[in-house]
Amino acid sequence: MTSAPPLRAVLFDIGDTLVRAAVPGTPVAHLRAEPIGAARRELDALATSYRLGAVTDTTVMTERDVRDALSGTGLGELLEVIVTSVEAGRPKPDPVGLRLAMAHLGVAPEETLFVGDAPVDAAAAAAAGVAFAPVDGSAGEAVRAHLTARSGAFEAAARLVAPTDEHAARAARDHHGLLTKPAGSLGRLEDVGVQLAAIAGVDPPPRPRPAAVAVFAADHGVVAEGVSAWPQEVTAQMVANFVAGGAAVNVLAAQHDAAVTVVDVGVATDLGGLATGGSAQLRSCPVRRGTANLAREAAMTRDEARRALDVGAAIAHELVADGAAALVTGDMGIGNTTAAAALVAAFTGRTAAAVTGRGAGADAATLDRKVRAIESALARLDPGADALSILAEVGGLEIAALAGFVVGGASHRVPVVVDGVIADAALLVAAALCPASVAYAIAGHRSSEPGATAALGHLHLDPLLDLGLRLGEGSGAVAALPLVDSAALVLAQMATFDAAGVDACQA
Amino acid sequence: MTSAPPLRAVLFDIGDTLVRAAVPGTPVAHLRAEPIGAARRELDALATSYRLGAVTDTTVMTERDVRDALSGTGLGELLEVIVTSVEAGRPKPDPVGLRLAMAHLGVAPEETLFVGDAPVDAAAAAAAGVAFAPVDGSAGEAVRAHLTARSGAFEAAARLVAPTDEHAARAARDHHGLLTKPAGSLGRLEDVGVQLAAIAGVDPPPRPRPAAVAVFAADHGVVAEGVSAWPQEVTAQMVANFVAGGAAVNVLAAQHDAAVTVVDVGVATDLGGLATGGSAQLRSCPVRRGTANLAREAAMTRDEARRALDVGAAIAHELVADGAAALVTGDMGIGNTTAAAALVAAFTGRTAAAVTGRGAGADAATLDRKVRAIESALARLDPGADALSILAEVGGLEIAALAGFVVGGASHRVPVVVDGVIADAALLVAAALCPASVAYAIAGHRSSEPGATAALGHLHLDPLLDLGLRLGEGSGAVAALPLVDSAALVLAQMATFDAAGVDACQA
Repeated sequence: MTSAPPLRAVLFDIGDTLVRAAVPGTPVAHLRAEPIGAARRELDALATSYRLGAVTDTTVMTERDVRDALSGTGLGELLEVIVTSVEAGRPKPDPVGLRLAMAHLGVAPEETLFVGDAPVDAAAAAAAGVAFAPVDGSAGEAVRAHLTARSGAFEAAARLVAPTDEHAARAARDHHGLLTKPAGSLGRLEDVGVQLAAIAGVDPPPRPRPAAVAVFAADHGVVAEGVSAWPQEVTAQMVANFVAGGAAVNVLAAQHDAAVTVVDVGVATDLGGLATGGSAQLRSCPVRRGTANLAREAAMTRDEARRALDVGAAIAHELVADGAAALVTGDMGIGNTTAAAALVAAFTGRTAAAVTGRGAGADAATLDRKVRAIESALARLDPGADALSILAEVGGLEIAALAGFVVGGASHRVPVVVDGVIADAALLVAAALCPASVAYAIAGHRSSEPGATAALGHLHLDPLLDLGLRLGEGSGAVAALPLVDSAALVLAQMATFDAAGVDACQA
Repeated sequence: MTSAPPLRAVLFDIGDTLVRAAVPGTPVAHLRAEPIGAARRELDALATSYRLGAVTDTTVMTERDVRDALSGTGLGELLEVIVTSVEAGRPKPDPVGLRLAMAHLGVAPEETLFVGDAPVDAAAAAAAGVAFAPVDGSAGEAVRAHLTARSGAFEAAARLVAPTDEHAARAARDHHGLLTKPAGSLGRLEDVGVQLAAIAGVDPPPRPRPAAVAVFAADHGVVAEGVSAWPQEVTAQMVANFVAGGAAVNVLAAQHDAAVTVVDVGVATDLGGLATGGSAQLRSCPVRRGTANLAREAAMTRDEARRALDVGAAIAHELVADGAAALVTGDMGIGNTTAAAALVAAFTGRTAAAVTGRGAGADAATLDRKVRAIESALARLDPGADALSILAEVGGLEIAALAGFVVGGASHRVPVVVDGVIADAALLVAAALCPASVAYAIAGHRSSEPGATAALGHLHLDPLLDLGLRLGEGSGAVAALPLVDSAALVLAQMATFDAAGVDACQA
């Protein structure tokens, strides 16, 4: 993280940055802009954090002409100002266009980012003293790369989380009414299909395949309080088991053609001897070697929490860049149901006793120690503590990474299928830090931990599965993947009443 | 169906009929019998209906020697008498061995079936005046072929439904305790895995793939009472949609590599013009062109109900013979939630109002007509009516076929994944006609129809999914298939604590 001044405005080149460039010589009246990728959704996300504008070279078009050409793309409405070289008097690399746009928005060069695809864009930015982000793919990804360097992968992702697409959602809902079945008769599969369309911004939505599972692993100092029936070494042993492919999540992920990536965010035991080349990839991103004992002191610092959020967001970014069409949350950490319950209590306002369960096999005495550890932790929280402070004080490294992972997936407009109580606690963190991210989450499974139901209720999420799983690892979310896929497939493949020659309901 | 006298006893040859024949010259003390296929389970099933014995040629072994050689196979315990040619004094084709066995059991030749693999077996049976069933595959399948010709596919299947294998179930339960996860932490997936092992008779159980879906379609005279918002023609139109591959069940089945077979058990509208070569196979097995109006008269005769049961059992037999490792129930029939609710009321003792729902979109007035139609039907039932009479009086052709399909699957020791309320009603019929078949059923989905919950509660079944589906077609059961597969896969593929070097729980 640098100490750059806060960014206040993002300016964009237009041709080959936000929309495909027109063939030179196309008459102005015939120009029809075609946005590149999800440019509208990207700008929609950025508009909630920044003033937006455009600076474009054209020998013939005024701002009014450009806005006409952009009509129907939704881009024009998101750009407060559009300066063309006709109005500026000089084309880029002259900085006059950028300066006019900044003056219009009332922002200084050091508060501004310019995004463009051409050397003249970079030169104009340099001349204006404005940071420059070169487009390689989409404008939003250029902004992400800049923001990641400026303030970390999590912050970058959070700025790029757009509201889900209500237009696509409505199209999917209407589409369901035309398919050869009684209205609403596919129940939750219809809701998930509509959500997938809203997430992707298109109906029918793409299949959520291939999915990628990230299992974030870390240890918890609170095990010193005797909150788990399992020795701390099991975290590292299970990481080895994931890498070797012998755990439940490996079996379920392989069943559904999902790759598993194991991410060490802070395992206490040395993983050095781990054989590679196994079933799952192992990524080493330790923020610290396990948290402090949250019953007695802050589990981690705010900076450590932020770095764990960055790990999660960065992994999400990499997995999507590698082709994942859906992300699945997984976790491993002996003692983590204690940290998760503490977070659920803190974010939902429930008591420790109400949200604490037996985790992976706690007896009554262990359960009692868990509740007391959580009560001690909660007692240290300021009533006005912000979400990052709560996460640092009573959370866990893998839970922070999971929150970053959810926000990272949302920033890429892919569904994030969340597992049990650990992921639910992470989702509460994500919701507090980046509320728009929750609309990208699909609850895979209702953990039997009481904290899961409290968290899901708070978030108004209803899990697809309720099979009594209490394993973690992402197992419940992976098991739900085929249902998410079904939801996409029925919209893509079912016949309509008209096409199939089936009479509609007479009611 | 013939008017043959009831069968009372089944006698078997042993070598190459029940067990692999020993290499000639193997010393008696070294003989270790290896049962062919599921011979023990087949005899276990048949033993509940028939007296069982064996007649075997051997130049050196007495009954005692044969029982020693069979020890550990479980076969000896199921054979009341074993006559060898040593004791009979003459080998087959002389009928003396068969006669001695029949005398021991106190049965007449016309009450007896002999099962063997060799020409001398057939000749001995002919000489003794006993029916003969040639083995081609397994002894049980030989008996099935005979019983099918004698009294229909359903009756044959019902006689071949064995209790599930408690030994394999225990092995699977113990196996789960060794896998790298907290005990019981895979919840219902563990229960289903244990059930699959009990069904297959082996741990780990085979994967339930490929699965085969049969969608049984028929019409219901009760639509004349205004019990559905949909015109009766929709049954035939949806059959066409299934064949063309445009329905929800087609999409979900294709997702899970399951073939769909559509079975016309009694569609009222002519299907003659249906294009073939589509996505699903269409089988034409009409028992009658739709039921009579159950509000006013018996829906069908007992003989028609029996023939519909036979259709279902025969289709199950064919699908398993074609390689299906699991069967999935599907249904289509405008008005069939009325017949299903009537059956649920009749078999569970609930009132019509308590088990009747809105089906595929009934309004309040339609719901009221449904309840009154069902009450009229139930009023005609004798208090002591047997299950077949209840089925004939208030059921439906596709429901009867589904009941036969469940029993057919159970007779082949494959899991039968049942869909919503129509299949649940069929399962009540199957349970009444063949109680052992229920242990082979896995409830895929909880239909939102109240009758579904009543039926499942009566059968002590807890569905895997509860997604608010109310479509039928088999959609909810097909959607549950990957979970059934997961249950098998974790037993087959997960590492044990020992193998993975993971410490076990200290609790």
